[in-house]
Amino acid sequence: MTDATLPRIALLLGDPTGIGPEIATRVLHDGRIVDVARLVVVGDARMLEQGMQDAKVTLDYERVTADRLDQVSPSKVPLIDLGNMDPASVTRGRASAEAGRMTGDTLVQALKLARQGLFDGVTFAPLNKRAMFDGGYKFADEHQLFAHELGHHGYFSEMNVLDGQWMSRVTGHQSLRQALDHVTPERIADAIQLADTMMRRAGIEKPRIAVAALNPHGGENGLFGTEEIDFIRPTVERVAATGIDCRGPFPADTVYLKAFNGDYDSVVSMYHDQGQIATKLRGFNRGVTITAGLSTVLTTPSHGTAYDIVGKGVATTGALESAIRLAAQLSVRQIRQAA
Amino acid sequence: MTDATLPRIALLLGDPTGIGPEIATRVLHDGRIVDVARLVVVGDARMLEQGMQDAKVTLDYERVTADRLDQVSPSKVPLIDLGNMDPASVTRGRASAEAGRMTGDTLVQALKLARQGLFDGVTFAPLNKRAMFDGGYKFADEHQLFAHELGHHGYFSEMNVLDGQWMSRVTGHQSLRQALDHVTPERIADAIQLADTMMRRAGIEKPRIAVAALNPHGGENGLFGTEEIDFIRPTVERVAATGIDCRGPFPADTVYLKAFNGDYDSVVSMYHDQGQIATKLRGFNRGVTITAGLSTVLTTPSHGTAYDIVGKGVATTGALESAIRLAAQLSVRQIRQAA
Repeated sequence: MTDATLPRIALLLGDPTGIGPEIATRVLHDGRIVDVARLVVVGDARMLEQGMQDAKVTLDYERVTADRLDQVSPSKVPLIDLGNMDPASVTRGRASAEAGRMTGDTLVQALKLARQGLFDGVTFAPLNKRAMFDGGYKFADEHQLFAHELGHHGYFSEMNVLDGQWMSRVTGHQSLRQALDHVTPERIADAIQLADTMMRRAGIEKPRIAVAALNPHGGENGLFGTEEIDFIRPTVERVAATGIDCRGPFPADTVYLKAFNGDYDSVVSMYHDQGQIATKLRGFNRGVTITAGLSTVLTTPSHGTAYDIVGKGVATTGALESAIRLAAQLSVRQIRQAA
Repeated sequence: MTDATLPRIALLLGDPTGIGPEIATRVLHDGRIVDVARLVVVGDARMLEQGMQDAKVTLDYERVTADRLDQVSPSKVPLIDLGNMDPASVTRGRASAEAGRMTGDTLVQALKLARQGLFDGVTFAPLNKRAMFDGGYKFADEHQLFAHELGHHGYFSEMNVLDGQWMSRVTGHQSLRQALDHVTPERIADAIQLADTMMRRAGIEKPRIAVAALNPHGGENGLFGTEEIDFIRPTVERVAATGIDCRGPFPADTVYLKAFNGDYDSVVSMYHDQGQIATKLRGFNRGVTITAGLSTVLTTPSHGTAYDIVGKGVATTGALESAIRLAAQLSVRQIRQAA
C-alpha cells in the first residue's frame, strides 16, 4: 500500500503524568508501523518533546493544520498542535485533575476531527480515568465520553483483545444490580453481532464466539435462576441461525478456561467482573482495549499510566503498537476499501 | 501420636460410576496418611472390592459395627458395610440416578454417625451432583444436604483450598439476583470469621484475608453501586477491629491476582462466579473443597468423577489425600485437644 491508501490513525499521547508520551514517541520513532498506518499526532508539541526526552530519541515532526495533512512529507511525523498542555505544569508520576481535564479536551478535539472524516481511527496512550473524572469529564468511563462526543445512542462496548482472544460484554461500568437489569435479549444479540463484526474486520474468517451464562452453573437447569432458559439461550440460538458461530450460554467459571485453551476466539460476558477477572489473570496489561460499535474505532493499550516507571525510559511499547495495528485493521477506511 | 489420639475420619467411596472407589482404595493402601488420621470406610464392601480391582491392590479390611470400631487392629482397614450399593448394578462412566440416590444415602448414614460423635470429620470421594439430585436429593448442592442432615440453620460455606489459598464466599449456589439480596453485613462478617477460624485450625497463625468488592472497580467511590460504601467496608473494618487481619473490599478483577501472588491467604468472594472463575483458571481440580461451619467438617477433592478414565487404573490420588489431611487438621478432635 502507498502512504495515501493507508488508514490514517490519530495518535494521542495520553495523560502527561504517565508513560504515554514516552511510549508514543518510541513507537513513532522505531517505524515498525509505517506500512500499517499513517499516524498523525494530536496533542501538544511540548508533550511530544517530553516524550522524546524520556524515550531518548529525536523525532522529525512537523506542525500542520487539519486541512493540510496530505502535504506533510512521509518522512516526517505530522502533529496537530493543540497547544493545550504544558507537561511542566503538572507533577509527573501521580494523578492530576488538571492533566485529566486536558487529556479529556484532547480526546474531544480528536473525536471532532474524526467525525469530520479526517481520521479512520484513533489510538490513545494511557490516560487516568480518575483524573479525567476529577478534571470535569463526569462519565463512568472514557467509552461513554466517546459515545457522547460521537452522538451515539445505541449499543456499543469496550472489548479487550489479548493473545488472540476477544473479550466483550453485554453490560459495562455500572453496579452489578443495574447490570442485571440491563442483561436483555437486545443487548445480548447486539454484543454477539458486534464481536463477530469486529473479529471479521480484524481478519478472523469464521469467529467462534462463546456466550457466558449469568447465573452460577449456567442456572443449573433453572435451579439457580431462569435467565438462561427464559432468554439467554433463545437469543444465542436466534443469532446463531443468522450464520454467526455463537454458542452457549456456558457456565462462567469454565468458559474462559475453554476459550484460553483455544476452543473459542471470543467470550461475550454478561457483566464486567466476569470477563475482567479472567482477563486480568491471563495478563490483561499486555492486551488492547477497544471501544467498538461507534462510528470511529478507538483503541488503547489495556495497561495504565504506570506511575512507578514514569521518566525512567524503560516503558515497553508492545501493547501500544498492537493497539495501533488493531485500529488500522478495524478502521473505517478498511471497510470502504472492502466495499 | 498413637492411633487412639489420631482424628477419626470417615472415608466415603463416592459415586460408584466414577473414580471414587479406585482413588479411595489406593489412598488406603499406600498408607501415606496413617500418621495423620485413622480412616474408617463407610460404604459397601462390594464397592471397596471394585476399587481394589481398579487400583490393582489388595486391601486388608475388616467389617465392623459402629460400637466396635476401637477393636479393629491398626493393621486393618475398618469398614462399616452399609450393604446398600452393588457397583455391578450400574453402568460405570456415566451418571446414574440410582447411583446418585445410594451415594446420598451413604452420606446421610455417615453424617448420622458423625452426629453421634463417632467421627471427627468426613472425607468423601467424588460424587455427581446431578445424579444425586435426580436420585431424590433435591438440594442445590451437597453442602445444603449436609447442613440439613446436621440440623444447621446459620451461616456455613463451601471453601476451596488450592496451593495454600483459601477461597470462600458470602453467597453460594443461588441465582445472581438472589445472591445480591443475600450479601448482608451479617453474612459478610460470618464469612470472614469462618475463613479465619478454618485457616487457624489448619495451622496458619495469622491468616491474611482479602474481601472482594461486589461492584466493578469496587463501585468506583459510589459511581457504580454503593454497597461497598454502605456496608461492605464498614463490616470489614468492624471485623478487623476484633483482631482478624481482613482488608478490603478490593475490586474483584485484581484481588485474586494479588492473592495468587502471595499477598493474602484467602479471598472472601461476594458470589459464586467471582471466586470460581479465578479458582478454576488457577487449577481448581488439584484443590480441596470443604464444607465449613457445620458441627462436622466435610472435605472432598475439588475434581469430579472423571468418567473418561474410570476403570483405567490411572486416576491420581493427590487431591483426595489433601482432602483427608485437611479433614484431620480441621477436625473436632483437634479442637478438643487444643481446649
